[in-house]
Amino acid sequence: MELLSALSLGELALSFSRVPLFPVFDLSYFIVSILYLKYEPGAVELSRRHPMASWLCAMLHCFGSYILADLLLGEPLIDYFSNSSSILLASAVWYLIFFCPLDLFYKCVCFLPVKLIFVAMKEVVRVRKIAVGIHHAHHHYHHGWFIMIATGWVKGSGVALMSNLEQLLRGVWKPETNEILRMSFPTKASLYGAVLFTLQQTRWLPLSKASLIFVFTLFMVSCKVFLTATHSHSSPFDALEGYVCPLLFGTGSGGDHPHNHGAAGPLHSPLPAKSREELGEGSRKKKTKKAD
Amino acid sequence: MELLSALSLGELALSFSRVPLFPVFDLSYFIVSILYLKYEPGAVELSRRHPMASWLCAMLHCFGSYILADLLLGEPLIDYFSNSSSILLASAVWYLIFFCPLDLFYKCVCFLPVKLIFVAMKEVVRVRKIAVGIHHAHHHYHHGWFIMIATGWVKGSGVALMSNLEQLLRGVWKPETNEILRMSFPTKASLYGAVLFTLQQTRWLPLSKASLIFVFTLFMVSCKVFLTATHSHSSPFDALEGYVCPLLFGTGSGGDHPHNHGAAGPLHSPLPAKSREELGEGSRKKKTKKAD
Amino acid sequence: MELLSALSLGELALSFSRVPLFPVFDLSYFIVSILYLKYEPGAVELSRRHPMASWLCAMLHCFGSYILADLLLGEPLIDYFSNSSSILLASAVWYLIFFCPLDLFYKCVCFLPVKLIFVAMKEVVRVRKIAVGIHHAHHHYHHGWFIMIATGWVKGSGVALMSNLEQLLRGVWKPETNEILRMSFPTKASLYGAVLFTLQQTRWLPLSKASLIFVFTLFMVSCKVFLTATHSHSSPFDALEGYVCPLLFGTGSGGDHPHNHGAAGPLHSPLPAKSREELGEGSRKKKTKKAD
Repeated sequence: MELLSALSLGELALSFSRVPLFPVFDLSYFIVSILYLKYEPGAVELSRRHPMASWLCAMLHCFGSYILADLLLGEPLIDYFSNSSSILLASAVWYLIFFCPLDLFYKCVCFLPVKLIFVAMKEVVRVRKIAVGIHHAHHHYHHGWFIMIATGWVKGSGVALMSNLEQLLRGVWKPETNEILRMSFPTKASLYGAVLFTLQQTRWLPLSKASLIFVFTLFMVSCKVFLTATHSHSSPFDALEGYVCPLLFGTGSGGDHPHNHGAAGPLHSPLPAKSREELGEGSRKKKTKKAD
Repeated sequence: MELLSALSLGELALSFSRVPLFPVFDLSYFIVSILYLKYEPGAVELSRRHPMASWLCAMLHCFGSYILADLLLGEPLIDYFSNSSSILLASAVWYLIFFCPLDLFYKCVCFLPVKLIFVAMKEVVRVRKIAVGIHHAHHHYHHGWFIMIATGWVKGSGVALMSNLEQLLRGVWKPETNEILRMSFPTKASLYGAVLFTLQQTRWLPLSKASLIFVFTLFMVSCKVFLTATHSHSSPFDALEGYVCPLLFGTGSGGDHPHNHGAAGPLHSPLPAKSREELGEGSRKKKTKKAD
Repeated sequence: MELLSALSLGELALSFSRVPLFPVFDLSYFIVSILYLKYEPGAVELSRRHPMASWLCAMLHCFGSYILADLLLGEPLIDYFSNSSSILLASAVWYLIFFCPLDLFYKCVCFLPVKLIFVAMKEVVRVRKIAVGIHHAHHHYHHGWFIMIATGWVKGSGVALMSNLEQLLRGVWKPETNEILRMSFPTKASLYGAVLFTLQQTRWLPLSKASLIFVFTLFMVSCKVFLTATHSHSSPFDALEGYVCPLLFGTGSGGDHPHNHGAAGPLHSPLPAKSREELGEGSRKKKTKKAD
């Protein structure tokens, strides 16, 4: 009986890992990605005034992970754009989300139950992209642990890791922060997932790839759906990191070093409040607002 | 009689498309490109204080299109720099324009009739680069419509599409704008030209490549010479776009969306004047000036 | 007798050029590179709050030259990261320098005599990297003079040439300056070294590669050790450049050009003091401080 259930679970995982992503899952991925673009301040106005820039940003949101992975692995940056059908599908989603009469499409996909389904399907795509990215990197670099992890990470995180560039395209520039400094949950989860899939790929994790995809997808879907449903920005890794980081990297209170204050002006650097007071009034206000 | 004229026109187009660009046309391209660099505020001072940075900028102005296309297609970024003779020619032009005694060379090439000839010859090079770029992309991606258009576009637009980077090299940073947000006439024309040449390459446009090169060159030369002669910054596409854009992308007046004002601080984003008043005095003045 | 000494000198140079760099010399390279990262304002605090960003910066400091050279030559950006042992060694150095209890490791390697040894060994690695980079570029482009020089230069300069990007990763943004505008001694020396090695590679310099490596290493080591010991930021090329530059590129006082002041707002550009006074108080102070 147990054998049977194990078999059927393994078979379930296997068939799940073979479900084609195009077009239904990809469509969900595009919808959720471009929704997040529309949430950005100024994005709607941008789409009216500069549709070309808005479309390019939408493409980065949908295909940023491929662009970054191609950059890392030395392949043509726009290699993925040869999939004309994907590009057309994403363009149609972009058009419907930004320009549909009465904002009908946007209102439909923003309706929470509908949105949660799309969010769940987006995570399915994300996990699959991590697995495929690591398989691809492993093909080129058999012992390149760091390369596999990095490729899986960028495949999972996508546009988030190039957010400064994406913002610049929209005429927005926030150098004080970036995704590495403030990792969101999907970026962190992609990193941890990339480590797991790399361990699996190099046979250090005694698990079939289909099972890992299945388990990690379940984890990602449940986390992301819960976070989206509760409008929460916390992360299930917080507890773990709160325990491990002080152990490994100190308490965060120290770090005062004579060299650090002798060198060139500490402007723009993430320094304590005191040094900010040396700045002029206007800059200080601006900076304080940005830091919020 | 008509057949004869058609034959001779076709032959004219064919022989025109075979005129070698090096060195005369390339020389004009370099002269006009580096002239535009010299027009940039601070460029002359930069050349005196930091000749190396000035030279690098000049190279970006002359060969930016090759660098961008190589980046997109995954080829070595400095591949084109193996053409030592082109680099030496461009370097000589850079030296003459910036450091010629009494500014003689600059004054000569800035003399309007002379400049118009060079501008016309630059457009010949631009159109040829678009055609070659699309042919090259088609060779790699037979059905990669978007790749062909993108390659042709960057080959035609050149340094304009990397203007933020080029400015950064000179110590100038204007994140509020970029070429995508404010397309100049050559950038737009390159985009439309890239679409036309892609249609021709994929046999959707019943025209020989030589004829298309001939016709599009005629169009570009006449437009650019007219715009340069009249110091105009308008574009012949304005009328068309004024008709099509509102139809496709709304009127530009709408776009107020509840989500857009609830999210994180809208600094640096292209927002209406009101939100700017929240900024400190110094920053506001600076921003207003920049926006002009 | 003279023949004998020449022989032994040649043999010495040859055996010197064959000394393996891993792990001892590479270790010194990593130590000195990450030391310079720790000297950056805000770096220690960054390592406490954002260890991931700090680690990535450390990797850029150690392997930036490979990343840049790979970018130029169209190879995978993270190609070098397949050398897991190098990455692990550099990561260990990063951890020890930033998180060693009582800052013991940092205090040891900062002790001047010890540091001077490491600095000397770092220069050995730098010269070897220039030579290898040019050999590699020559392999791909036999007559690509500019490509060879560029590759050698980025291999020698490393992270300095991508300092803006490295700062951005730490949330710091100083667009007013970059390594091209203010070349440090190692960057300049790498450029001149790259020219020399390119001349040697193309047989214009009648010298064996081993001898050139030997002589140039001696020069770099003595210069860098002297500069480090005296905490000096001057450069041995200053005298030469002070003589050649005015001859080639004018006096630096001139360069006033009518076009330069008529164009778009000159904000952020390296302009004389007057135009700065138009900025608001806060911005002006900020700018002045940065310019120091």
